[in-house]
Amino acid sequence: MTTPTTHHSAVADTTPQELESTLAAAQAAAAPLAVSRPDQRAGWLRAVADALDGAADDLVPVAMEESGLPEPRLRGEVARSSGQLRMFADALAEGSLLEVVIDTADPQATPVPRPDLRRMLVPLGPVLVFAASNFPFAFSVCGGDTASALAAGCPVVVKAHPGHPRTSIRTADAMARALADAGAPDGALGLVLGFDTGVAALRDPRIRASGFTGSVPAGKALHEIAANRDEPIPFYGELGSLNPVFVLPAAARQRGPEIAQGYAGSFTLGVGQFCTKPGLLFLPAGHGLQDDLVAAASGVPTATMLNERIHAGYTGGVAELRKRAGLQEWVHGDESGSQASATLLRTTVPELLDDVDVVLEECFGPTSIVVEYADHDELLAAASAFGGNLTATVHAEEQDGEQVSSLLPLLQERAGRVVWNGWPTGVAVSWAMHHGGPFPATVGSIHTSVGVTAARRFQRPVCFQDTPARHLPQALHDTNTLGLSRRIDGTVTRDDVPTEGEHR
Amino acid sequence: MTTPTTHHSAVADTTPQELESTLAAAQAAAAPLAVSRPDQRAGWLRAVADALDGAADDLVPVAMEESGLPEPRLRGEVARSSGQLRMFADALAEGSLLEVVIDTADPQATPVPRPDLRRMLVPLGPVLVFAASNFPFAFSVCGGDTASALAAGCPVVVKAHPGHPRTSIRTADAMARALADAGAPDGALGLVLGFDTGVAALRDPRIRASGFTGSVPAGKALHEIAANRDEPIPFYGELGSLNPVFVLPAAARQRGPEIAQGYAGSFTLGVGQFCTKPGLLFLPAGHGLQDDLVAAASGVPTATMLNERIHAGYTGGVAELRKRAGLQEWVHGDESGSQASATLLRTTVPELLDDVDVVLEECFGPTSIVVEYADHDELLAAASAFGGNLTATVHAEEQDGEQVSSLLPLLQERAGRVVWNGWPTGVAVSWAMHHGGPFPATVGSIHTSVGVTAARRFQRPVCFQDTPARHLPQALHDTNTLGLSRRIDGTVTRDDVPTEGEHR
Repeated sequence: MTTPTTHHSAVADTTPQELESTLAAAQAAAAPLAVSRPDQRAGWLRAVADALDGAADDLVPVAMEESGLPEPRLRGEVARSSGQLRMFADALAEGSLLEVVIDTADPQATPVPRPDLRRMLVPLGPVLVFAASNFPFAFSVCGGDTASALAAGCPVVVKAHPGHPRTSIRTADAMARALADAGAPDGALGLVLGFDTGVAALRDPRIRASGFTGSVPAGKALHEIAANRDEPIPFYGELGSLNPVFVLPAAARQRGPEIAQGYAGSFTLGVGQFCTKPGLLFLPAGHGLQDDLVAAASGVPTATMLNERIHAGYTGGVAELRKRAGLQEWVHGDESGSQASATLLRTTVPELLDDVDVVLEECFGPTSIVVEYADHDELLAAASAFGGNLTATVHAEEQDGEQVSSLLPLLQERAGRVVWNGWPTGVAVSWAMHHGGPFPATVGSIHTSVGVTAARRFQRPVCFQDTPARHLPQALHDTNTLGLSRRIDGTVTRDDVPTEGEHR
Repeated sequence: MTTPTTHHSAVADTTPQELESTLAAAQAAAAPLAVSRPDQRAGWLRAVADALDGAADDLVPVAMEESGLPEPRLRGEVARSSGQLRMFADALAEGSLLEVVIDTADPQATPVPRPDLRRMLVPLGPVLVFAASNFPFAFSVCGGDTASALAAGCPVVVKAHPGHPRTSIRTADAMARALADAGAPDGALGLVLGFDTGVAALRDPRIRASGFTGSVPAGKALHEIAANRDEPIPFYGELGSLNPVFVLPAAARQRGPEIAQGYAGSFTLGVGQFCTKPGLLFLPAGHGLQDDLVAAASGVPTATMLNERIHAGYTGGVAELRKRAGLQEWVHGDESGSQASATLLRTTVPELLDDVDVVLEECFGPTSIVVEYADHDELLAAASAFGGNLTATVHAEEQDGEQVSSLLPLLQERAGRVVWNGWPTGVAVSWAMHHGGPFPATVGSIHTSVGVTAARRFQRPVCFQDTPARHLPQALHDTNTLGLSRRIDGTVTRDDVPTEGEHR
């Protein structure tokens, strides 16, 4: 890894002295955040959400200039980010985010009597968030990693992505002001810039966990730094994903042109710069859809990529693919200037299996590969060749049922989300969403970076044994004054703890 | 790390060929386990629990011979282990272990419509469990790591501890027979022996996660192997803990002799070979309890330690402590042969803070240090000097309230479980228990190795988007045929999914 250059280099890196004061402030904020009540924290998150919505007119034009992304997309990202903060606020108020579990004393338990045990999740402490380039809001300063860490009660230090430094600074300013006005502890949110600064912060003992969205090599290198510290810390990295789409025969026959159109729209969305971009489309041989696919992909307008580094990486990657003997080029895109138009490639399963190291590597930008399979066995062989992915998509009709039954277990094993008759781009923010997957989709496949349980990455349990109410956090009192959802003696309820007389 | 020697070396290490066939069998079992229903898995766990109870008369004498531990303790461990398996079976049947979350489609959601999303936890695949020496059942072949991984639906390969190889083999045989008789897939449980075998297994790509209980150096070395694989895997290590006990002034005045007695019993329990052994007891200066403490510690009978390696480690560790200028020896234990009796040491907070590297290092065996504090500021300074611990204990009366209020936040930050007016040895198996803590107590403080959520370490979420019922796992169907506890549109219920007409 080297320091990336950007075409917006007017913003200076954070100095070591500035980093020190940011880390010290985060450290100082950890204790007051840890003892804050869930309803207080919910209020702070709502204040930040309102501030983001209010600042959209100020933030979006800067992000447009820095990222080249269009206004509606960026406005959507701000709305998504504020909505996400409100979702975490709701989950705090409802209580599930704290996972309160109370087992009342059981003197009759065998082999030994059981004491009164009251457990809840508490924050890990300062979290370092490495922002992504491709979503200047939704996976950057105000994105899911920051929102979930703040919801958990952790101070957050964001390492800005060099692709949009001024957007990052303005976003952090708006958020920090809202936090201060709402009464959150000083130091709850900090921002640092610069590659070396990020690595120094990751090595600092005050940082207790880290979230990252970016490339496989950068993610692996940072993961090793985190794991090999004197005191290892959890590192949650979202790295690379191919997001294959498997079209089964009946679906190809019945909805071919519609599938071609949807596919071209999905793999070129945001100039192909989505972590959920479909990198491969499996079609039955003899599908007869070449003309539809070529027309759909050719019809997508040329657009500006996020920054020079990504454009250069894409240009190199797609050039490498064009050289492969096993790949035919159906649509030849143009990568001149800082822009790109769609490139569509075509191969067969045997050719793909012959060249997996190159063909099954993510190429970040508006290219995708149509892979033709001769029969179902070939399709299963291809599915088995994949490593971990964020998503896997199936297009099928009822007549494809038998083939689906043998394909789905392979996909479940390799992907975090299975999409049916749809497209993987677009990640709803909700309780049930999972955005994660086996390596290399993420380091840490047991976690999600989107959805309520994303906060768990930054929380650890603490159990109080036989501790009197006057020394317990309010969430653990017999009387459920905060109205939290809690598990009491094995059952989830929003009631008070039953007294001994009522209970047994 | 070197290959440990044991006084029961009649059992040969697993050969590379045997390891290969064990790993291949585990790999083959992964797919059928992943599609097993929760009620099936619950049945398999109950069958294993019954088999353990039934085999106790056969297993306990072997474990007594290999570990030197007394019969009642070992029978208690078997009962604890079978009870733990039944707890996981209950949580599977109740459904919480799968964490089913269903968000029904919401075409009105902003900024974009939401598809139907159905998420549940699925197993990671084969898990490697490094068994501990000090609990030949409860933290060994049939312990919490194995039980929680099987509950999660993962095949388990146990690396036996060299301190009790024959107990390990017999336990694994009884469990594997019960699994086979109950219809679980072949290869659901395997056992391997030998240090090199364990390292080779940890490096094998078929192993998807690992649990470990043991020393800090061994745990750190294995963690680095797991993190630096081509495909990193989660490594859950329980390493070292000092488990300090803080006695506040009023408690020392009112219950001094009782505290002295309880302390001596706790730090010598199991010949001091508990991961929750209280390694330090903080008492106010002028406590006047020296005679009580000396009498209580001297009254504990000499007992045999687990094995030669642990005895040698303890002998070296306690000799090092005796040499420290700042430590006085109140009771001089005897470490001749393979036995040990209690050693009680005494120091002050300033002396401790002068020598933290040695005094704040776990010494595994029947020794503990009384630390006298001059005032509350000294007590807080001492509490702040600790790293992560499994437990921290407070003895206090109502008059100590103010001091408790400043001490507890420091303990919550550093410990996984806070014990009030009790002793840390003894870990109840229940929903609310937390057995874990910040590093070096564990690698991975967000997880527990005891209690229902221990299974989460071996599960990852999968989300199905818009997938028809005929291709969904039964747990995700609209109709809740398995009677599981599920979160539907944000609310936990055991009902069916509401139809659109009923719902909005």
